[in-house]
Amino acid sequence: MPMSQPLSQVQGSAVTGPARAQATRARALPIDRVLLRAFLRFAGRPPVRCVLPNGDAVYEGSGEPVGSMRFRDRATLYHFLRAPEIGFGEGYTDGRIEIDGDLVEIVAAAYQPVAPLVEKLFFTARRARQNSLVGSRHNIHRHYDLGNHFYRLWLDERMLYTCAYFPTPEASLEDAQVAKMHHVCRKVGLQPGERVVEAGCGWGALAMHMAQHYGAHVRAFNISHEQISWARERAARAGLGERIEFIEDDYRNVSGTYDCFISVGMLEHVGADHYRDFGAVIDRCLPAHGRGLIHSIGRNRPARLNAWIEKHIFPGAYPPTLGEMMPIFEPFGLSVLDVENLRPHYERTAADWLARFERQVDQVRDMFDERFVRAWRLYLAGTSVAFRIGLLQLFQVVFARDRFNGMPWTRAHVYA
Amino acid sequence: MPMSQPLSQVQGSAVTGPARAQATRARALPIDRVLLRAFLRFAGRPPVRCVLPNGDAVYEGSGEPVGSMRFRDRATLYHFLRAPEIGFGEGYTDGRIEIDGDLVEIVAAAYQPVAPLVEKLFFTARRARQNSLVGSRHNIHRHYDLGNHFYRLWLDERMLYTCAYFPTPEASLEDAQVAKMHHVCRKVGLQPGERVVEAGCGWGALAMHMAQHYGAHVRAFNISHEQISWARERAARAGLGERIEFIEDDYRNVSGTYDCFISVGMLEHVGADHYRDFGAVIDRCLPAHGRGLIHSIGRNRPARLNAWIEKHIFPGAYPPTLGEMMPIFEPFGLSVLDVENLRPHYERTAADWLARFERQVDQVRDMFDERFVRAWRLYLAGTSVAFRIGLLQLFQVVFARDRFNGMPWTRAHVYA
Repeated sequence: MPMSQPLSQVQGSAVTGPARAQATRARALPIDRVLLRAFLRFAGRPPVRCVLPNGDAVYEGSGEPVGSMRFRDRATLYHFLRAPEIGFGEGYTDGRIEIDGDLVEIVAAAYQPVAPLVEKLFFTARRARQNSLVGSRHNIHRHYDLGNHFYRLWLDERMLYTCAYFPTPEASLEDAQVAKMHHVCRKVGLQPGERVVEAGCGWGALAMHMAQHYGAHVRAFNISHEQISWARERAARAGLGERIEFIEDDYRNVSGTYDCFISVGMLEHVGADHYRDFGAVIDRCLPAHGRGLIHSIGRNRPARLNAWIEKHIFPGAYPPTLGEMMPIFEPFGLSVLDVENLRPHYERTAADWLARFERQVDQVRDMFDERFVRAWRLYLAGTSVAFRIGLLQLFQVVFARDRFNGMPWTRAHVYA
Repeated sequence: MPMSQPLSQVQGSAVTGPARAQATRARALPIDRVLLRAFLRFAGRPPVRCVLPNGDAVYEGSGEPVGSMRFRDRATLYHFLRAPEIGFGEGYTDGRIEIDGDLVEIVAAAYQPVAPLVEKLFFTARRARQNSLVGSRHNIHRHYDLGNHFYRLWLDERMLYTCAYFPTPEASLEDAQVAKMHHVCRKVGLQPGERVVEAGCGWGALAMHMAQHYGAHVRAFNISHEQISWARERAARAGLGERIEFIEDDYRNVSGTYDCFISVGMLEHVGADHYRDFGAVIDRCLPAHGRGLIHSIGRNRPARLNAWIEKHIFPGAYPPTLGEMMPIFEPFGLSVLDVENLRPHYERTAADWLARFERQVDQVRDMFDERFVRAWRLYLAGTSVAFRIGLLQLFQVVFARDRFNGMPWTRAHVYA
């Protein structure tokens, strides 16, 4: 069986120390086969071939397998059987699970039949850890401060690290990120001279877009030091320093009043226990004609994030259902005007990120190591899959003060 | 002070028996003035002049009053002070409260300052009475079986008794109701030959529209005998009998599977305790590519319906918040794709209904009596006001099976 990503690739950094020791002494026993087979049946017989450390293949699917996953040692197999999400993620990262075939298609094939079960198992929303002011700073630092140079390698040129909006399936990622920013501004009917507060501004692309194309005055908050420094420099270079104030602070410390409250891709890091507080911030920011937009990854049913993603990629993150988001709005009588689920657009965005990441993979490996490459490859592939098979949603929610009658008569202007 | 709707108008039927006796013995005491003044302050000093039975006026607003309300007797005044919603509704219906000026503007002026208070008072959602199979039939009969001839007088020619969709503010009600039906069909991407189940079909206009313009096969449910008879006759006359089956039964008895589940203006009568059951009906109706739309009056915050409307116009009705609607979707993993709040369109729809009602008011009086005329005038005026000032919302929610990827790439087709 040819391996498209041979083990030799990862020997440099991955399979060392204990992993190598395990791999060396690994032998498959009959019980391994029995347990793996039972697991695959329980998991809905995915069309993925599993290969035991001794080379024996186990396949419970029907039809042609989409690809294979190979366990290099028994410890990895048992870690996977005990805790599949973490076990697969860590095993793949360490090079102790190898896959043969297209990673996205294999993950999709493996997840598709088991997705309803995954949702049910985690249905009693064990919420993400508390996101205190200090905790948030730590969690955000861990992901977003990996280095601007890293993100530049594979994000679009404006550095938007949130779901794009593809006006047509043929649009490029660059165009789709610009289209997303217009989509957001049109939805809230942003007018020249209006004051906008942005909670969680990333590298500042949307703040710059609102200032440049809509004549807005923006105060943009972010607790990622790396991002905010970059954003300040970029805005200054573009001559937008007068119209944008980048503030390195938590959204809970937002003060002042604004015509618009915008938050794109931050709610995932707020944590469901804090939504009412988040709503209180919006409530104190918005005058009688105020309106806003929240863009967030979400769920159809309450469930915690994929355990491996939560542990290794996005500590403290939690994607809410639409119902779970309502404490942001309902206690304050904020009126929900428009919700759009952009799920297919995130499948596409993450697939584009993955393709660009692979094109720069040698540079990424030089900056970090092979384990990092594999972890991020799996994270981007898994993200695309989760949106494709409906495990994750992307909600854009437009809201306004309850008595504000100044919104456009229909949504047609968004598509004009 | 000229009375635009003089008492003489209502003497025929309204102010008789006990009401007339009370009116005769009514005198205002100083305490009436004190209490009314305190009430008006508590109610946010609305710009409406109140006139006591002895002709004394009390005004706590600032600026020019929008109009006046006059209490014919002390019993009516105290009924109003004790239970303003019921007291005003019943007093107005009976002709014991007269208004001078435009009813819509006076109700709006009276409600606007007090609306946040009303919302807070009723915030602990005392839910509407149980809507059992028998109870629902009784409640629906009371409102919808008033006679097709009555509704024909003032609804559009196709008899749609739900919020219209005005593509432009200048559109006529007739055009806006047709536009609403297209809006619904486009949102779910209805295709020729698809099977649709409609829960709560009114007089059948949407079912006919889907069959005629989209080539759908429709099974339409309704428990109003008057409506369903009318619908059947109309569909047969239009030669659509083959493609539409009208079923006089409760939505809970829907069987079969369908490509689309549509419910326009029925959820208000389902009752929040039954939403999960409603979701279970949808769940058993929809295959893997199934999708649907629910169109319902709603709220920003949980609150029961206006007490007078609930008692006299819509027994058993309850307008849910978006959050309260989620038990329809989340337990079944149904994916919410699109929510549109059409609040301004319902303000306009109800205002159009009221204007048409007034043009036919003599016929309505002949069919019923002056009390009926006044109750319906107030109901239609109050509905327009409630949507204008944000006490009510109109949510159109598009949903689909969680793994269905067949929806159009964007919402642009809805506006093409």
